[in-house]
Amino acid sequence: MTATQTTERTDARTVTLSIDAMGGDRGPSVVVDGLALSAQKNPDIRFIVHGPKAELEQLIARKRDLNGRCEVRDAAGVVSMEDKPSQVMRHGKGTSMFSAIDSVRAGEAEVCVSCGNTGALMALSMVRLRKIPGVNRPAIAVLWPSRNPNGFNVMLDVGADVRADEQDLLQYALMGASYARNGLNLSRPRVGLLNVGTEEHKGRAEMKAAHDLIAANAEAGTFDFVGFVEGGDIPSDKVDVIVTDGFTGNIALKTGEGTASLIRSFLKEAFSYSILSKIAALLALTSLKRLQKRIDPRRVNGGVFLGLNGTVVKSHGSADSTGVSAAVKLAFQLAQSGFTSKLAARVASAASLPQDALNSGDN
Amino acid sequence: MTATQTTERTDARTVTLSIDAMGGDRGPSVVVDGLALSAQKNPDIRFIVHGPKAELEQLIARKRDLNGRCEVRDAAGVVSMEDKPSQVMRHGKGTSMFSAIDSVRAGEAEVCVSCGNTGALMALSMVRLRKIPGVNRPAIAVLWPSRNPNGFNVMLDVGADVRADEQDLLQYALMGASYARNGLNLSRPRVGLLNVGTEEHKGRAEMKAAHDLIAANAEAGTFDFVGFVEGGDIPSDKVDVIVTDGFTGNIALKTGEGTASLIRSFLKEAFSYSILSKIAALLALTSLKRLQKRIDPRRVNGGVFLGLNGTVVKSHGSADSTGVSAAVKLAFQLAQSGFTSKLAARVASAASLPQDALNSGDN
Repeated sequence: MTATQTTERTDARTVTLSIDAMGGDRGPSVVVDGLALSAQKNPDIRFIVHGPKAELEQLIARKRDLNGRCEVRDAAGVVSMEDKPSQVMRHGKGTSMFSAIDSVRAGEAEVCVSCGNTGALMALSMVRLRKIPGVNRPAIAVLWPSRNPNGFNVMLDVGADVRADEQDLLQYALMGASYARNGLNLSRPRVGLLNVGTEEHKGRAEMKAAHDLIAANAEAGTFDFVGFVEGGDIPSDKVDVIVTDGFTGNIALKTGEGTASLIRSFLKEAFSYSILSKIAALLALTSLKRLQKRIDPRRVNGGVFLGLNGTVVKSHGSADSTGVSAAVKLAFQLAQSGFTSKLAARVASAASLPQDALNSGDN
Repeated sequence: MTATQTTERTDARTVTLSIDAMGGDRGPSVVVDGLALSAQKNPDIRFIVHGPKAELEQLIARKRDLNGRCEVRDAAGVVSMEDKPSQVMRHGKGTSMFSAIDSVRAGEAEVCVSCGNTGALMALSMVRLRKIPGVNRPAIAVLWPSRNPNGFNVMLDVGADVRADEQDLLQYALMGASYARNGLNLSRPRVGLLNVGTEEHKGRAEMKAAHDLIAANAEAGTFDFVGFVEGGDIPSDKVDVIVTDGFTGNIALKTGEGTASLIRSFLKEAFSYSILSKIAALLALTSLKRLQKRIDPRRVNGGVFLGLNGTVVKSHGSADSTGVSAAVKLAFQLAQSGFTSKLAARVASAASLPQDALNSGDN
């Protein structure tokens, strides 16, 4: 295969992604639909698809856009949403999830995408890909719709681990800044630490320790530290990267999603209240669709596992084809930017903190 | 004064509220405007207003609805938003905040309302009103717009304390259930414990301990325990009361507010995109106002301090007159239901847990 050049992306090259086709709430047909959507838009993308071979080949054969661009790897086992991570770690071999991660481990694919069980995916990823030197706890980062010009902020950890000490929070700051550089094209991201007030005396004692540690490493890490930020600042333009532990981050993420979903319901009810309001809704349709596109959770689908020798994108379990395609797009962007190796270099340098090594790269 | 009877509320009686007129971001005139709004709607309400006498009397004299219904207590000092709670605890005497709390302590007023510094208000309230027997950490509870028939859920703690152990979380469950009974008229509220997953093996170890303790006390506390809930469930109809520590609760609250505010901005932008969308907005105005009313944070203004010998309502510092009036309405409802003494009785009984005492009341 030869890399297809486009006018806007002169560095275009073929990227192969490893796809776990099983384990999502809607089954493999939705995953294959999502791959077809991505393939149609992006000529530089190839897939290794993991799951029951006969079933997958049948689904893929129906999609013209996937013709010659998918390789199927047979894996009979499926990790279910109910499976405990500890069990999957011991008995996960032979599942589509294990197989999908191993394609990244073997270097056949650059990034792995799965709609499966988050805990199991993280546990298997840690066992098979291993943590990069200098990282104690890997993290899951998400893009959060924001008032910033590019429309998104990065938040991590949103659920890899329920605890984080100040060293972990510093690593999250470094990894989050690296993600923002590669995923959002920000040369010097602004990093904030999530707390219950912006004054330095507020919050838990360990927050103060993390505050000071991150502040001391900001220059070497090539990011700006804006100090403490509050929940209301997550979607703001005061900050690009929000650092927190996985317990708080997961609750904030789901609270934000729940609030957006509640408002969507209220909006629908408001416009179906009477015949008149239904007519108004028809006239307002373009505006409402414009809004919907900006707050549609399917379009920002994909939590990225950071801190491993290989990048894994976790799609929502309930993702439809649009959601799967969004996760694939994110995986493609990260693969093409060479994110995994840049992140590893960034964290490795920070672990020893030699000024020159840190300031030389753009990773 | 005699209690004014209305047709819908046969138990109507005059309620006196204590108002800290100072310390809000917009100054005392907005507070007085808010009191006038409430007085106009509610003939059973009286106020003791604390702050600089001359200034307040001038503001009050301009409002016909407040004629004969306000008593002004002179207090020259003002607690600012920047003052540290520890300093206010030592040197707060003579401030309007101190004076407002003391009117509740003296039994002259039933509930105190302040737009001032939250930390200072909690610190002064704890010193002057004291914790009720059986409560280790007081909590701040808020009403959260939800899919439930009455439109709201209760969440606590949203920021009184950054930590809570399993005993504290049990007390929050009891206090939150009591608040839901008195504030939302739910005879048997459903209580959930906020966690990062609904499975019992998920989350931090202390969450499991709190889960089991609350479950064991649900029957005696006359509430239903629905177990763990996630961030997305806060506005849901699966639960009425959401229990969490003040760190997590504060971040969830502000994340929810920030998300709602972001969507309001996006909605505005979507409808001002072009001439056509502006015309559509005019036609959709009634529907949009219907939505606005449901997600307007001013209408659910008021965090309630629970666990003290006296109830204190904290209004947003940036509240306008509509917001102040909403906080006053909440304070009036709680006063009229005899909430403070019912809550104290509930927690006192739970501390020893005699089945009969707990099942006899409706508090």
